[in-house]
Amino acid sequence: MRATLLYAAGDVRVEEVPDSAVKFPTDALVRITAAAICGSDLWPYASLKPGQGPARMGHEFIGVVEETGHEVATVKPGDLVVSPFAISDGTCEFCRDGLPTSCSHPQAGFWDEQPAEGAQAEAIRVPLADGTLVRLPAAPDPALIPSLLTLADVLGTGHHAAAIGGAGPATRVTVIGDGAVGLLSVLAARRLGAGQVTLMGRHPSRTALGREFGATDVVAARGAEGIAAARDLAGGHGSHVVIEAVGTLSAYREAVGIVRPGGIISRVGVPQDEDAPVGWNSLFRHNIRLAGGPAPVRAYIEELMPDILNGTIEPGMVFDTTTSLDGVPAAYSAMAGRKALKVLIRP
Amino acid sequence: MRATLLYAAGDVRVEEVPDSAVKFPTDALVRITAAAICGSDLWPYASLKPGQGPARMGHEFIGVVEETGHEVATVKPGDLVVSPFAISDGTCEFCRDGLPTSCSHPQAGFWDEQPAEGAQAEAIRVPLADGTLVRLPAAPDPALIPSLLTLADVLGTGHHAAAIGGAGPATRVTVIGDGAVGLLSVLAARRLGAGQVTLMGRHPSRTALGREFGATDVVAARGAEGIAAARDLAGGHGSHVVIEAVGTLSAYREAVGIVRPGGIISRVGVPQDEDAPVGWNSLFRHNIRLAGGPAPVRAYIEELMPDILNGTIEPGMVFDTTTSLDGVPAAYSAMAGRKALKVLIRP
Repeated sequence: MRATLLYAAGDVRVEEVPDSAVKFPTDALVRITAAAICGSDLWPYASLKPGQGPARMGHEFIGVVEETGHEVATVKPGDLVVSPFAISDGTCEFCRDGLPTSCSHPQAGFWDEQPAEGAQAEAIRVPLADGTLVRLPAAPDPALIPSLLTLADVLGTGHHAAAIGGAGPATRVTVIGDGAVGLLSVLAARRLGAGQVTLMGRHPSRTALGREFGATDVVAARGAEGIAAARDLAGGHGSHVVIEAVGTLSAYREAVGIVRPGGIISRVGVPQDEDAPVGWNSLFRHNIRLAGGPAPVRAYIEELMPDILNGTIEPGMVFDTTTSLDGVPAAYSAMAGRKALKVLIRP
Repeated sequence: MRATLLYAAGDVRVEEVPDSAVKFPTDALVRITAAAICGSDLWPYASLKPGQGPARMGHEFIGVVEETGHEVATVKPGDLVVSPFAISDGTCEFCRDGLPTSCSHPQAGFWDEQPAEGAQAEAIRVPLADGTLVRLPAAPDPALIPSLLTLADVLGTGHHAAAIGGAGPATRVTVIGDGAVGLLSVLAARRLGAGQVTLMGRHPSRTALGREFGATDVVAARGAEGIAAARDLAGGHGSHVVIEAVGTLSAYREAVGIVRPGGIISRVGVPQDEDAPVGWNSLFRHNIRLAGGPAPVRAYIEELMPDILNGTIEPGMVFDTTTSLDGVPAAYSAMAGRKALKVLIRP
């Protein structure tokens, strides 16, 4: 079968690899019909050193179950399924608490940590299939597939950002970052009732989509100027919720500048630095809270899917490019160059 | 009148200063009957440079109103009152939200920021008296005064730590620090229903008091050994709530080591460093949340006072030393040398 491999920064190849197959009784083998390139894939694409690769790529997919191990009970061959970006057993204390990204099962973890599997491929072996996979309607409108694919990561991640930030009717929300996660954080905050959502981003085509998703204001400026503009929009005292959907220290500093006393910074961009200011002058003086992490999207799929199926939300609008596996290397380059917002792969 | 002045690290003096007096129509003049030395007073006592002093000291007091400005409506001469460690107007959007420590009134702020007032003195001018002061029962049992004095800071701070951490019946709590705030965090967590409260501290007389306040376990070890012991007590996966009541980076790192995935670190020790680890390896990977700041104790006094008056809790047990103003310099030295836990001042 064919799969995507990252050999080193900037060096993506689609190559023949050994066929994925059921290995454990709790596995499922899934034939992939739709996958995606994630903004987080761009970090290794920018920085992987030659000795560290090649790495299998991709952690978002929809596909058809082809075979199951004999202990799998909730999905069967022929089922159309979506997978979250993390593998989980669905039964441990963290899964029961709604935090499957911290599942304590030895086979749990992120797709990105699987050395021999990846979603930007023709097929994939899914460990702990009962906990990990979610069945989709048997034959959904093909136009819904892009939106259903966002359940694998970016919609659930935007929802996580908004939900753990406490976005709701009485809150002013600022979203830093106009990537797919930032834009879907806008959608999610509005879905949870936020009346004011300011989107900070400087790519007009992306911020225009942000307005379609419900952003009430857009700030293109960054740094001190961007902070001042966002604070002004929030009535001078700052935003109750600041969603940081980038991961850089400069984006974090903007969040600190924009958040209201007693407010919360909700991070869903993978932090590129370990240390950041959290002392008296940044968070402590005004009881600013910090939350976030890899979104437990598995726990959100059942809540979010009906809104896609009934047309209330259309998160699949974040996909502006579609390619076959052959086009994947060029698609990475386009995303890294900000020529594509998010790429849908039809293997 | 006489007041306490910190001239430089280790140099505390009690001297004649100009009499405090009503200056604005919203002021009250209070004759102090009980004050305290706070653990946070030990930071400047350890580090104040000669050029920065002298600073007026003290932010916890009970006293009798002697005079009020003509706009003051809620207290009158003769009233016994307690003051939180922050001045607030009680009416701004932050006060209404329960965060008076971020009051937006120009005269609001911490007692420690007042250049010409301090609570370790005979009298004090209280700005925004209506928002700041709380009346006590006219003639409480004198034995209750130490406990009522803890409403000014350390009880409310312990309560803040436990409350914003979400301590409750279903949570395992670890408290780092056996100072007055750590000990009262134990009391507060138990009061909110926590079944397991582990106290980390190495002073036997203090941890013994912690057990009286409800600590179910005590860990004397620090660092990696302390982390392992606390995690073991919490069932291996860590504590839902870790209260960090010290303020040093090493205490913070312990908190990171002990907290459960999805849990919360609640900080009430004033951070001595601006930067700390909050990235993938510390907070982000497992969705650890960070909360805390100067406690809005004014907002908690009405809730906590009845439990003191009816004898349910006795937070005043943290006072193990009493002195007149003359003894204040020696009392600082005793607290800094860990010979006194917390000092009550009867001016």
